[in-house]
Amino acid sequence: MSLINMLFGKKQKTAGVARDRLQIIIAQERVKAQAPDYLPTLQKELLEVLSKYVRVSLDDIRISQEKQDGVDVLELNITLPEQKKV
Amino acid sequence: MSLINMLFGKKQKTAGVARDRLQIIIAQERVKAQAPDYLPTLQKELLEVLSKYVRVSLDDIRISQEKQDGVDVLELNITLPEQKKV
Repeated sequence: MSLINMLFGKKQKTAGVARDRLQIIIAQERVKAQAPDYLPTLQKELLEVLSKYVRVSLDDIRISQEKQDGVDVLELNITLPEQKKV
Repeated sequence: MSLINMLFGKKQKTAGVARDRLQIIIAQERVKAQAPDYLPTLQKELLEVLSKYVRVSLDDIRISQEKQDGVDVLELNITLPEQKKV
């Protein structure tokens, strides 16, 4: 199975209210545990960048974080509003 | 297979020169074809944000874009330098 099939979840039903969505995944692999952790900073910056272009409310953003085998993964799922700023 | 296993490629060998890596994936699902395409803008902004924290050269960034079933996927693979700005 390719990566693209994993995005937005496999069994997502787009029936019902179909809205545009963005999914942002940041994975960080650190060889040394003491290497800088960019995820918290990148998450903050990403939300700032997004808010310049889209009027997203915090209710429309789901954030999850996972760690496995030295890889930290930050996942942001954003449901975009119907009205766009741009 | 979970998403986390798909990141950085499944058969990545970390022997040899082990360096920290970042992988950023942005997937955009547009219900209507005429909905705004955020990927080019987000890509530019992301690289600007990254360059604030890490001294990455363009040689260390691989960018690929894919489209399937109404989902656009932008993938950035960044090999981090050994010396960090922070």
